[in-house]
Amino acid sequence: MTGVSIREVGPRDGLQNEEPVPAEAKIQLLDALSRTGVARIEAVSFVHPKAIPQMADADEVWAKAWRNPDVRYSALIPNSRGAQRALAAGFREIEVVVSASDTHNRRNLNRSTEESLDDIAQLIPLVHGAGATLEVIVATSFGCPFEGDIDPDRVAGIVARVRADGADRIAFGDTTGMATPRRVRDLLTAVRPDLLHFHNTRGTGLANILTAMDLGVTEFDASVGGLGGCPYAPGASGNVATEEVVHMLHDMGIDTGIDLDALLEAAVLAERLVGRPLPSGVLRAGPRTRLSAL
Amino acid sequence: MTGVSIREVGPRDGLQNEEPVPAEAKIQLLDALSRTGVARIEAVSFVHPKAIPQMADADEVWAKAWRNPDVRYSALIPNSRGAQRALAAGFREIEVVVSASDTHNRRNLNRSTEESLDDIAQLIPLVHGAGATLEVIVATSFGCPFEGDIDPDRVAGIVARVRADGADRIAFGDTTGMATPRRVRDLLTAVRPDLLHFHNTRGTGLANILTAMDLGVTEFDASVGGLGGCPYAPGASGNVATEEVVHMLHDMGIDTGIDLDALLEAAVLAERLVGRPLPSGVLRAGPRTRLSAL
Repeated sequence: MTGVSIREVGPRDGLQNEEPVPAEAKIQLLDALSRTGVARIEAVSFVHPKAIPQMADADEVWAKAWRNPDVRYSALIPNSRGAQRALAAGFREIEVVVSASDTHNRRNLNRSTEESLDDIAQLIPLVHGAGATLEVIVATSFGCPFEGDIDPDRVAGIVARVRADGADRIAFGDTTGMATPRRVRDLLTAVRPDLLHFHNTRGTGLANILTAMDLGVTEFDASVGGLGGCPYAPGASGNVATEEVVHMLHDMGIDTGIDLDALLEAAVLAERLVGRPLPSGVLRAGPRTRLSAL
Repeated sequence: MTGVSIREVGPRDGLQNEEPVPAEAKIQLLDALSRTGVARIEAVSFVHPKAIPQMADADEVWAKAWRNPDVRYSALIPNSRGAQRALAAGFREIEVVVSASDTHNRRNLNRSTEESLDDIAQLIPLVHGAGATLEVIVATSFGCPFEGDIDPDRVAGIVARVRADGADRIAFGDTTGMATPRRVRDLLTAVRPDLLHFHNTRGTGLANILTAMDLGVTEFDASVGGLGGCPYAPGASGNVATEEVVHMLHDMGIDTGIDLDALLEAAVLAERLVGRPLPSGVLRAGPRTRLSAL
């Protein structure tokens, strides 16, 4: 393997799970990330402002952010109304979430997994009709905080259904950090996604990525600074930190296209914007190549 | 691989890198850890109290701690004076450190690596004469914060020297968290230790352990709660947290002999004793098998 593609999710998934910050801060962060060399950025979500106030200004943020022609930007949407907003705003890469756990899906989306799959089947022609692509993110793929382990066959069934309905890409989400190297191997042996989204809640983030790479996966989500952990649990971390992923990969001689120094500058900015220490070890300690003065 | 042996280093390596705590607190922690099923515990170090005030009460702590006959306890010593104290206190497993980096060895021990190796050659008959064993911990094996990368051949040379001098066991220490899966593979391909000691400074702790296991290593140090991070750098972590290691291994069906619940109780105690949140994700979030109520 010579290259890995990172999708930076800090501006959307990260900031959506922090205390709200102003539109100007989001634009600053997006612009800083657009300068890092990262291939893809999940920029905003088009959700109901009452459900997720952190993303109420998605239209404004996206209208004012710099769009680097070398970066692919995507938006997350919950339903056809969100899809219409995202398409009107100019997005050509759209993501939608369905949970492998029926219990989690009901609590998160207020309907069964099966009902969400029916909704997605209707969304796909709408998105395709506008010349855009739809990625389906299968949440709780590695375990559900309510149901526990999720049978890989259940995830495989969901993948087969949405692929048959025309989904362009599949991601597996480790929604509450229950993935481990063993679970990654078990699931990926049963069914292969295009992209993986890991959390580092229980310390396994990089070990999971290493395991998935060993099985041939080359696309991963990561969040600058580890943005998106719950600020009320000190030390608790959500998304795997982009710097930690890039630091490990570059040391292995695997290219990401990302300039680690520029990424670290964006992480410093992210930390300042949310006003709390972020969990990224590479942000805290610096890369292993940054030596101490004698 | 069906089993991995963990050496718990929280009472020594962990507490030595925290603000000093009273002897009573150290005894409480040792006793709690002795009840977890862990195979080995690094209990104390016999160092000069002016150099390391955190360990000034090593004799008192060790005299009063419960000694579980199923646990192997060890002590770290810096020189023959320390070895004599450790042997007089009844230890039969002794550890000594030498740094692969000459610069680091000079700053840490005020002499060259070569001079430290000469000291160790003289220590070995002293330790063996008392019926004890000596483990040599090669610090900065995966990189030095002053010199940068360390040539695996240099580490291999040190190992050959101390083995020829009669050292019983060899450990490689990732002193400042510079190990990565790539560096683990590079070094272990050149020379194999009995035991590995990783930090999680840059997020690679569990990925390093996974890589080393893949290369056949079955003994690892870990510190309860991740005890031993620098308290002045929020989120920065030192030793890999024992709960995170055990949590990943048990999920893989690999036995450690450790009762994770008992270990988590010890981690809660450790956190209370040092009075700051420890960096362990499994301590914070609980094991992946601990489900949320609906």
